Amino acid sequence: MDPVEAHVARVLAAIRPIEPGQLGLEEAQGAVLAAAAVATCALPSFDNSSMDGYAVHASDIAAATSEAPVTLPVTDQIPAGDTRTVSVAPGTCVRIMTGALFPAGADAVVPVEWTDGGAGQARFSQPVAKGYSIRRAGDDVAEGAMLLPEGTRLGPAQLALLAATGHGSVLARGAPRVAVIATGNELSEPGSPLVPGRIWESNTYMLAAAVRQAGGVATRHRAGDDPQTVLGLLEKLSAETDLLITSGGVSMGGEHDVVKAALSGSPAADMSFGKVAMQPGMPQGYGVVGRAETPILTLPGNPVSAFVSFCLFVRPALDALQGMAPRPLPSRRAELAGRVTSPPGRRSFLRGVLAPDGTTVTPLSGQGSHQLGALAQANALIVVPEPVTAMEAGESADVISLP
Amino acid sequence: MDPVEAHVARVLAAIRPIEPGQLGLEEAQGAVLAAAAVATCALPSFDNSSMDGYAVHASDIAAATSEAPVTLPVTDQIPAGDTRTVSVAPGTCVRIMTGALFPAGADAVVPVEWTDGGAGQARFSQPVAKGYSIRRAGDDVAEGAMLLPEGTRLGPAQLALLAATGHGSVLARGAPRVAVIATGNELSEPGSPLVPGRIWESNTYMLAAAVRQAGGVATRHRAGDDPQTVLGLLEKLSAETDLLITSGGVSMGGEHDVVKAALSGSPAADMSFGKVAMQPGMPQGYGVVGRAETPILTLPGNPVSAFVSFCLFVRPALDALQGMAPRPLPSRRAELAGRVTSPPGRRSFLRGVLAPDGTTVTPLSGQGSHQLGALAQANALIVVPEPVTAMEAGESADVISLP
Repeated sequence: MDPVEAHVARVLAAIRPIEPGQLGLEEAQGAVLAAAAVATCALPSFDNSSMDGYAVHASDIAAATSEAPVTLPVTDQIPAGDTRTVSVAPGTCVRIMTGALFPAGADAVVPVEWTDGGAGQARFSQPVAKGYSIRRAGDDVAEGAMLLPEGTRLGPAQLALLAATGHGSVLARGAPRVAVIATGNELSEPGSPLVPGRIWESNTYMLAAAVRQAGGVATRHRAGDDPQTVLGLLEKLSAETDLLITSGGVSMGGEHDVVKAALSGSPAADMSFGKVAMQPGMPQGYGVVGRAETPILTLPGNPVSAFVSFCLFVRPALDALQGMAPRPLPSRRAELAGRVTSPPGRRSFLRGVLAPDGTTVTPLSGQGSHQLGALAQANALIVVPEPVTAMEAGESADVISLP
Repeated sequence: MDPVEAHVARVLAAIRPIEPGQLGLEEAQGAVLAAAAVATCALPSFDNSSMDGYAVHASDIAAATSEAPVTLPVTDQIPAGDTRTVSVAPGTCVRIMTGALFPAGADAVVPVEWTDGGAGQARFSQPVAKGYSIRRAGDDVAEGAMLLPEGTRLGPAQLALLAATGHGSVLARGAPRVAVIATGNELSEPGSPLVPGRIWESNTYMLAAAVRQAGGVATRHRAGDDPQTVLGLLEKLSAETDLLITSGGVSMGGEHDVVKAALSGSPAADMSFGKVAMQPGMPQGYGVVGRAETPILTLPGNPVSAFVSFCLFVRPALDALQGMAPRPLPSRRAELAGRVTSPPGRRSFLRGVLAPDGTTVTPLSGQGSHQLGALAQANALIVVPEPVTAMEAGESADVISLP
């Protein structure tokens, strides 16, 4: 059996980053820059006022006090967006709004709160320092400066910086397109009636949601137990997506393991199936399929196994598709509030509830790899190392927080 | 000036949860259950095998050893999805796959790895405990059990549990629909040429991305500085959305503050404009607009002010729209790696970089409320309390992690 880390490393080695594209800002959320973004002009691009107030010559009101205020005629007003070239003559002032182009001649802005707010003339009862409330061109970002390095993931603030510096689009790796495929004749659609022997299909809903939560774009697909049909579906999807994820059909059932049967020995695929020393999720496979050599991860069919496999293997693969080093899920040490057990030689990932303060973790009952009830209550996975077969309440364990 | 918490409380008091709807599972990601979900049948709904192997009468192989194996004829095979009623006669066995309907008569499954894997007959070289590798109906969830309480936010595992128990849809509050509106004649579209006095519009990109990151659905809109046009746009959008967010036009510029001008005194709106004791983000407004009395938050126009306001006021409002108690952003104490300053009487939220281990936070340079460069580098906000005007390197501060 492969150690978990060895399987992660082999999966990542099979992944090539997707081709970057020129993405509009709105579609670039979550995308990763494929080249550094540079400021083609300064930000702000012109001197402007940081307050609503009056642009003045500071020397004109140097002697102003509340007892002896100075009154100046207001010769113009400059709202934000006004592109005129306005000048302030000595002994006059100009009304100016936040963000408006700072006028020639003036050397400070007096906030309206310090004045009487007059329209035809304004009364100033205190002096102002030269340069006050002026944002100078380039005081945020200098022209030519690097805004964001290659490899930056674009969130709200990064998109704002790109927009504010005039970028209508960026060269970036967008959300990976992922096809999620469940296999098995036993699968019925939730909401439809069920007969004994059949189950409602849940893995595509779970895995597609997990893909979206991790920043990918997911489509859901289902196939029965015919290997040729499954292979045909996988080849078709491989031409349209950046990653394929199957669930089920990779265990010890021989010809009944349809994913193994479809991909093993096919000239359309290059696969490796094996066992990973973990619980749940032992049977795993990875490789490439189709002419585009699209990477594929074949996860086990038990839903908890598929979920844990997603956290350990698919999430890093999604990061790698965007050219990023994998971001591990947050983990910490916490005190076990109950006993846990684990098979020897396998690393267990047990479902638990991490307390809000993060200090203790309570193992849930129902740790079977088919038991979704506990998984749906869990906010954390308790990690039991390979050589350990039991840990007692009070011991400290590694705990992975679920997203 | 209102304290931050008072403004949050007043904003939340103006929010009514959106009407729940019957949502299909795929559209329900991130939705919040408006009623508890109950299991209408047991999960699993029938006894089934947890392994690929053979269904046997355990007593038939009680004496089996590797020296004296027991051989049984294989009378049938049951793949997953097979809905036939199969029986296992004493002295025989039936091949069975993981998840397949457990046959009548048998009382255990012997994993294929313990056998020779034979097709016509199978050799058993060790006994098996009664009940081994059988998943009993209901051992995950009993019929009638509560699956998930009202108020549960639906992620991958919760959706899987709902699907596995046959729910095709659920009564839930979906993603809030949010319209983001930037105002100002100064705004130009990123990617287009710029003249002095104009700026590239960034707030709608930033706020729409922030809405999506927080689980909402966002649309972007822009209006100039005509109050009637702005009011008309807000009324129109109020009929189509669950929340309106404006940026800009709420400061001290009198008639130039178009959002204030549009909404103040209009019979189509019921608004409260004021100042919050914070930096950046002092001018704030909230209320309802349009016949549907859609809640609206009017954020300041400086981009960093709008960003911080989103974190403090809009995120809780989005939770409240889904009927949830607001989830605060994660915060912790960390040691300052540099000096920070703050105006007296206002709580500052300064941009910083929290170290990966979370113990220290480095304030960024460029803390102006217009300075996006620092915001785009930040992963945290450093909180300086209202009475404090400076904190020195080495002091411990509250730090909010950005999403």
